[in-house]
Amino acid sequence: MTEAMLSGTVENGVHRLMLRVYWEDTDAGGFVYHANYLKFCERARSDFLRLMGVRQSAMGNRLFVVRRMVCDFLRPARLDDLLAVQTCCQATAGARLELRQRVSLKGEVLFAAAVTVAFVDRAGHPRRLPAEIRALFDSPFESAP
Amino acid sequence: MTEAMLSGTVENGVHRLMLRVYWEDTDAGGFVYHANYLKFCERARSDFLRLMGVRQSAMGNRLFVVRRMVCDFLRPARLDDLLAVQTCCQATAGARLELRQRVSLKGEVLFAAAVTVAFVDRAGHPRRLPAEIRALFDSPFESAP
Amino acid sequence: MTEAMLSGTVENGVHRLMLRVYWEDTDAGGFVYHANYLKFCERARSDFLRLMGVRQSAMGNRLFVVRRMVCDFLRPARLDDLLAVQTCCQATAGARLELRQRVSLKGEVLFAAAVTVAFVDRAGHPRRLPAEIRALFDSPFESAP
Amino acid sequence: MTEAMLSGTVENGVHRLMLRVYWEDTDAGGFVYHANYLKFCERARSDFLRLMGVRQSAMGNRLFVVRRMVCDFLRPARLDDLLAVQTCCQATAGARLELRQRVSLKGEVLFAAAVTVAFVDRAGHPRRLPAEIRALFDSPFESAP
Repeated sequence: MTEAMLSGTVENGVHRLMLRVYWEDTDAGGFVYHANYLKFCERARSDFLRLMGVRQSAMGNRLFVVRRMVCDFLRPARLDDLLAVQTCCQATAGARLELRQRVSLKGEVLFAAAVTVAFVDRAGHPRRLPAEIRALFDSPFESAP
Repeated sequence: MTEAMLSGTVENGVHRLMLRVYWEDTDAGGFVYHANYLKFCERARSDFLRLMGVRQSAMGNRLFVVRRMVCDFLRPARLDDLLAVQTCCQATAGARLELRQRVSLKGEVLFAAAVTVAFVDRAGHPRRLPAEIRALFDSPFESAP
Repeated sequence: MTEAMLSGTVENGVHRLMLRVYWEDTDAGGFVYHANYLKFCERARSDFLRLMGVRQSAMGNRLFVVRRMVCDFLRPARLDDLLAVQTCCQATAGARLELRQRVSLKGEVLFAAAVTVAFVDRAGHPRRLPAEIRALFDSPFESAP
Repeated sequence: MTEAMLSGTVENGVHRLMLRVYWEDTDAGGFVYHANYLKFCERARSDFLRLMGVRQSAMGNRLFVVRRMVCDFLRPARLDDLLAVQTCCQATAGARLELRQRVSLKGEVLFAAAVTVAFVDRAGHPRRLPAEIRALFDSPFESAP
């Protein structure tokens, strides 16, 4: 498997990542533990940035942090499920990115989230998004997850 | 330490749980990983139920699942921080509980969430809250976290 | 990406899985949190079984559990690292599989483990490995991770 | 609950921490996910250090890392179980601490581990244990978990 394939694909501004549900993701209720959908979404955001050429581990004193997340847990995922996480950027403004993400199984949406991500320094203060990062996400596109 | 103390306390309908930030809760950004606030809140909800006399591990084919969670990540927590998680029930309706939760450090709120919890069977179908569980949370109270 | 690629590959009896280090895997020390190497190894074992045709989610009242794990944490992994997890079965006996696993970065071994996995029923009692599962792992092979 | 109680107690050189099993700790097999016993042990080690007066978050460029861990998973823990984690230091040498840890439920041992912890700098190089830390753990004691 090439490195690129592991990070998903971007098409029409929508990033798509496939991932497997392992034992670690489930709980004794038999389904995926609710907080783990947020991990899946964060993996997708990191890979989206990676494919756009942004290396988080090389950003020094800047990092992206989640400010707000509105999460709808619609249907449960189970062990061995092969999930698709779709991510698109809806808006950029100052130090913020507004994203939509959803996790689905065979086309059925299990989890959906609206995510506000802020660009901050190590003290937690907001920092204006670099023009090159804004440019990556500002291009208009029609399709959205 | 008595078992009761480990599960926090309930006062005026507000449950309060103290918990420590360990290495496992943090990430390479130096702060608590965002999804882990949801774990903290789930611990608090479980302990709230426990103190109200509801044993989740003895509910057989019924369980509580999170349906919706609106999360505000306000300030970061760090390794060794001693956090307080406050939880109160705002409303019950049919198969649902509406809760407010917040995580704070020395009185400063770091994370706040509005949580909709549903009571379901193992197939995921909503089930009416038993009268005894509704009664626990229906009592009016003034203070809210 | 095809489903098969996501589950790694088996060659000469050695399973190889590539995986990415995300924020969730790291801690405030800046490296991968030690317990997470066990998660990486479990993902690899699950995918190894998957590729061998064993569906854990369809095993009903039987499951594999880890009985013993001797873990050497040799060098740290970091955010964004692309890791390889290699797994091979060294022996089968009664209700047990003896496995060797290692996690490496660009050929350098970061973590190595000897793992004893038992086949048990839901009460935790050991159950003889089905002949078809033993057969999968009993074939002799030279190379080992 | 006082802060001290949350961190467990030390008696005759043995640290004892009580902790609850929550949904996040379990998996779809119905028991605690194996890697999470390592998290429980790390919480205990952190609290042991805390009670001995060592603040990990104030150690600047030094940190403790796990080098080796021999883990025996003896019996499963379940949701709602109230576990005890016992930790004692068996030896100190140069940059290392040798610890024994075990997790038990009502006196029955579920998990036991021998843990080698190293004191390192941020580059991962071993650093001699400060005399004051060695002194904390070098005092002879009889009882061991």
